[in-house]
Amino acid sequence: MKEKDFMQHAIKISLKGNPFPNPFVGCVIVKEGKIVGQGFHEKYGENHAEVNALNKAGEKARNAEMYVSLEPCNHYGKTPPCTKKIIQSGIKKVVIALKDPNPLVNGKGIKALKEAGIEVETGLMEEKARKINKAFFKFQEKRKPLVILKAAISLDGKIATKEFDSKWISSEKSRNKVHEMRSKVDAVLVGGNTVIKDNPRLNARIENGRNPLKVIVTTKKISPDYNVFNDSNFLVATTNKNNFSEKKFEGKVLELKTANNLVDLKTLLFILAEKKVSSILVEGGSAIFTSFLTEKLADKLMLFISPKILGNDSIPVFGFLGFEKVSESPELKNPVFTKIGSDVLFEADLK
Amino acid sequence: MKEKDFMQHAIKISLKGNPFPNPFVGCVIVKEGKIVGQGFHEKYGENHAEVNALNKAGEKARNAEMYVSLEPCNHYGKTPPCTKKIIQSGIKKVVIALKDPNPLVNGKGIKALKEAGIEVETGLMEEKARKINKAFFKFQEKRKPLVILKAAISLDGKIATKEFDSKWISSEKSRNKVHEMRSKVDAVLVGGNTVIKDNPRLNARIENGRNPLKVIVTTKKISPDYNVFNDSNFLVATTNKNNFSEKKFEGKVLELKTANNLVDLKTLLFILAEKKVSSILVEGGSAIFTSFLTEKLADKLMLFISPKILGNDSIPVFGFLGFEKVSESPELKNPVFTKIGSDVLFEADLK
Repeated sequence: MKEKDFMQHAIKISLKGNPFPNPFVGCVIVKEGKIVGQGFHEKYGENHAEVNALNKAGEKARNAEMYVSLEPCNHYGKTPPCTKKIIQSGIKKVVIALKDPNPLVNGKGIKALKEAGIEVETGLMEEKARKINKAFFKFQEKRKPLVILKAAISLDGKIATKEFDSKWISSEKSRNKVHEMRSKVDAVLVGGNTVIKDNPRLNARIENGRNPLKVIVTTKKISPDYNVFNDSNFLVATTNKNNFSEKKFEGKVLELKTANNLVDLKTLLFILAEKKVSSILVEGGSAIFTSFLTEKLADKLMLFISPKILGNDSIPVFGFLGFEKVSESPELKNPVFTKIGSDVLFEADLK
Repeated sequence: MKEKDFMQHAIKISLKGNPFPNPFVGCVIVKEGKIVGQGFHEKYGENHAEVNALNKAGEKARNAEMYVSLEPCNHYGKTPPCTKKIIQSGIKKVVIALKDPNPLVNGKGIKALKEAGIEVETGLMEEKARKINKAFFKFQEKRKPLVILKAAISLDGKIATKEFDSKWISSEKSRNKVHEMRSKVDAVLVGGNTVIKDNPRLNARIENGRNPLKVIVTTKKISPDYNVFNDSNFLVATTNKNNFSEKKFEGKVLELKTANNLVDLKTLLFILAEKKVSSILVEGGSAIFTSFLTEKLADKLMLFISPKILGNDSIPVFGFLGFEKVSESPELKNPVFTKIGSDVLFEADLK
């Protein structure tokens, strides 16, 4: 195995963790070309990847090399600084995929290691390491959550029939993927119409799935009897707080109004960022998708395109955009089509 | 090489021909495991594949085996029967992929060969041989042309903006593929609106492209100055013949009216079949696609899906279909998504 393979392995094992709101981190300790210890950051508040790997390696860490997918921390947070433990272990060289953008860490971990006489290399597989923590980095750098618009559509771009039937436009495989995605984001967001018409639970129905915060954006009154309000892990953003006076909504309602009497999404995102929400899966409906798109608040588009035709009297994924020319279409960067069951998943970055 | 490889080769070379309205046929002559002659049906009225292959093989055909993708004919058409030439050549065995559905041939070619003492096998790679001549077989069996609905759409199922701008929704690669398709079908069909809004030429702009018959379906009056009328290779199907009184339209207008005062598409297809049109590429617009779909007259759907968003005030690929449930979507058989340039091509069979 080569340097690159060790880092690849560190990145791979990092994804086994569920460290929200911390990033995914994996660590591999190598001595004489062999892995003598490895670990990942399993959960917020628990040991970091480096500590888990060092604990596994024990005495073998002395004079060994460490491959870690993110810069080790040098501060006291929920756990003591990793740099301290690394220095004590006798590691002679640390290879880091990329610097931690968190201002508490950024470069300071590297500095501490070097000052202790440890050889430090950075940048190995940086892009890959960055990609797996895209939401984390966006959040750290811009203090705005990563917003993903996700919809299941027919070939003709519809999300439901005129009678609001949408079960099921996409294949089971696609729907499983959505549950997996829900367990990876910090919040899901839907409009009031979707709550009323679909009555979704919005939980992550997969093994060990972490349920995201449910955010309901609405100008309407909604009864507390809907499924999304079954537990207390929700938040309502509305134009009129008085519509949510029931006890169940206590402390869970934000009144955020724009001049046009719509829910102020920009401020909502800011507030969610303050609450440590680093990624949001927006699951519809049409009005919500259209607002995020036209206000340029979305970062990523994910469309599960299913081999069905629903006709133009069905509900469209996007509403009126006012375009006269094809060239006015929003720029979709890095477009990728992937086969998933009988559907195609379209993914792209929005400006 | 095995039997299957020889037949595969015969099928492959058949596609080099442009034999309309005859089917694609390829033929390979094999002696002691080696190909000693091969040929395909190049053009209507010219030699059949078997004759071309036998001419190449010459004396080597004696005691050789023949692999041919379609049953050899046993009747005098534009050329003498192939069976006669095969028998004279001294071929000892003929392997046929599939029987010719043409009632003039069907089984008679095989019978003639057997009666002459030649060993005959049928069915090797039958499905593939059938697939490449799908339009031909449908036409032979049902006396109805194969109807392909083709559209370039945005992710949200739009074929043009509200201002009828559609240049270009799909990528250059997709558009090239359309020109290639036009050169392979016998006719292209569009509605009057498409003629007026897009003023298309509807020709096959590729090297050696054969221009299909242009069929215009319209309830409106259209000026003879539009590009589709630039040459005489067109036909107008309309509800009111008097709208097409100009000299240019002489002998080129069919009046076909349904009870609802629309163009009678079913009868139009029947008339086109009589004119030896075995395949039609329907290129829009929305109303035409919707009619073919709801009247269940289409056999195949081809959608070039482009990574663009046009919004619900743009022109949809399909109009109102009246569905209340997702399950009412037309059944799309054998759905296939293929990457083509920056687009995805969706293909499926309609019932």
